[in-house]
Amino acid sequence: MYDTIIIGCGPAGMTAALYLLRANKKVLILEKETIGGQISSSPLVENYPGVAQISGSALANNMYEQIDALGAEIELEEVKKIESGIVKKVITDENEYECKSIIIATGSKYRLLGLENEVDLIGSGVHFCVSCDGAFYKDKTVAVIGGGNSALINAISLADICNKVYLIQLLDYLTAEKALQERLSKKDNVEVLLSHSVKKLNGTDQLESITLDDDTELKVDGMFVAVGQIPQNDFAKGVIKLDERNYIDSDDAKTNEEGIFVAGDCRKKAYRQLTTACNDGTNAALDVIAYLDSYE
Amino acid sequence: MYDTIIIGCGPAGMTAALYLLRANKKVLILEKETIGGQISSSPLVENYPGVAQISGSALANNMYEQIDALGAEIELEEVKKIESGIVKKVITDENEYECKSIIIATGSKYRLLGLENEVDLIGSGVHFCVSCDGAFYKDKTVAVIGGGNSALINAISLADICNKVYLIQLLDYLTAEKALQERLSKKDNVEVLLSHSVKKLNGTDQLESITLDDDTELKVDGMFVAVGQIPQNDFAKGVIKLDERNYIDSDDAKTNEEGIFVAGDCRKKAYRQLTTACNDGTNAALDVIAYLDSYE
Repeated sequence: MYDTIIIGCGPAGMTAALYLLRANKKVLILEKETIGGQISSSPLVENYPGVAQISGSALANNMYEQIDALGAEIELEEVKKIESGIVKKVITDENEYECKSIIIATGSKYRLLGLENEVDLIGSGVHFCVSCDGAFYKDKTVAVIGGGNSALINAISLADICNKVYLIQLLDYLTAEKALQERLSKKDNVEVLLSHSVKKLNGTDQLESITLDDDTELKVDGMFVAVGQIPQNDFAKGVIKLDERNYIDSDDAKTNEEGIFVAGDCRKKAYRQLTTACNDGTNAALDVIAYLDSYE
Repeated sequence: MYDTIIIGCGPAGMTAALYLLRANKKVLILEKETIGGQISSSPLVENYPGVAQISGSALANNMYEQIDALGAEIELEEVKKIESGIVKKVITDENEYECKSIIIATGSKYRLLGLENEVDLIGSGVHFCVSCDGAFYKDKTVAVIGGGNSALINAISLADICNKVYLIQLLDYLTAEKALQERLSKKDNVEVLLSHSVKKLNGTDQLESITLDDDTELKVDGMFVAVGQIPQNDFAKGVIKLDERNYIDSDDAKTNEEGIFVAGDCRKKAYRQLTTACNDGTNAALDVIAYLDSYE
């Protein structure tokens, strides 16, 4: 029986594995898609402390090699269901595993606009995280897509970095909270375009401009999509308490089920960053170690 | 006027600087001793995700170079006092600075036993953090010094890694909570020595054995000192709410004073690790960015 099964092999899951393997625990990691998770698709990471510049896939690979050297066991299987209890069960599309504890580190995915070459341009003009990629657009022109809290936070931050920021919102009003709307209104270089959507992304290797639904073409160097994230928690429904947006409802690593812990972007939290994911992986692992010691 | 003054140039402070500089904020970092803080004295770091093996000083230097390239302003001055208000003041042994916000990232120091060559042997047999350095003692013999919660958590974790663990406690009883004492009692390879203290550390380049107060010599490969930490928060007394052990009393990055934030080991928290310090620096910086946007 495994001491812990970690669901998700992104930075949170791999950090948890690093701590657990170094503490001599028997660990299995299950990953449904890509080792490294969301960060793997980032061409350039500059906000990971101590590593000046690295591609997301190289950073993920370094994390993988680090836990591989410690004997990490990883299976590429999708978890369909978990069962709580003293002995917990993790049921995948291929197998059924038993374990003493579980760490859910499944992350979240950015919602896309659904445009033709959007995925191809990720990292080459199409972005999601201003704290991560905003600095690449110093003194340039960008568009932010969305009108909720995240979109406005992004636009406000970008206003301090960029020459010009377009905020493009489908509805004829912003849904972000009043305070953010007031903060946004103080930024002279932000132009809000309500009742508009993006129809087309222009550029092959790099985004060059965007075409709106009324055929206006806006020359932009980058576009930040802020139309929501989708936490990958469906398999946990009915067992683990989720909040109204499907994030695991926990202020730390503990969930409502004893011995089932959570780490990373799939958790309700203020900021979703590499550093906060690694933090969560650490906390979950150290909580698991304490849990295992009192395990009967 | 600075947007933010960061007090302390360890991983938490440097991570905060990284985020704030990339967001185009005017930042000053004040450090009283060593750039890098406590991690600088660690000869080998193996638990930082994505970096397989690195010395603490090299990791700290990488973090320094990363923020230096972004134009970080650092002064080696000791902060004596801070004053809250819309315009905040930071008074050092040499200067007085004004700023809109402050991040306290002063860290904590491990309490030493006060033995002759103890400092020289740090990292070469003398350790403080089991999650950091415990794995270096796989199948070896170690001693843990102390009888409180930290000491017992360390001894319990080391019992899963090492062949033999001595727990050496000055008092004739353990002060750790009952649950930990029960967990410790289940570990067959832990020997508790009450009413004992360490008199002498033997070994020049590497710890070889320890001599107890009754002249018993214990052959050990390593020693983990767990007699407490001293958060470096004295300068904040009377302004910022501290808990009973002098840690800044905050569950996140916010303190009781608006616009004054906290990050890293100087904060009340469950686990003090590199990853959790970087997490705190991120959270504090992103909170500062929001605060600055609403700053009048």
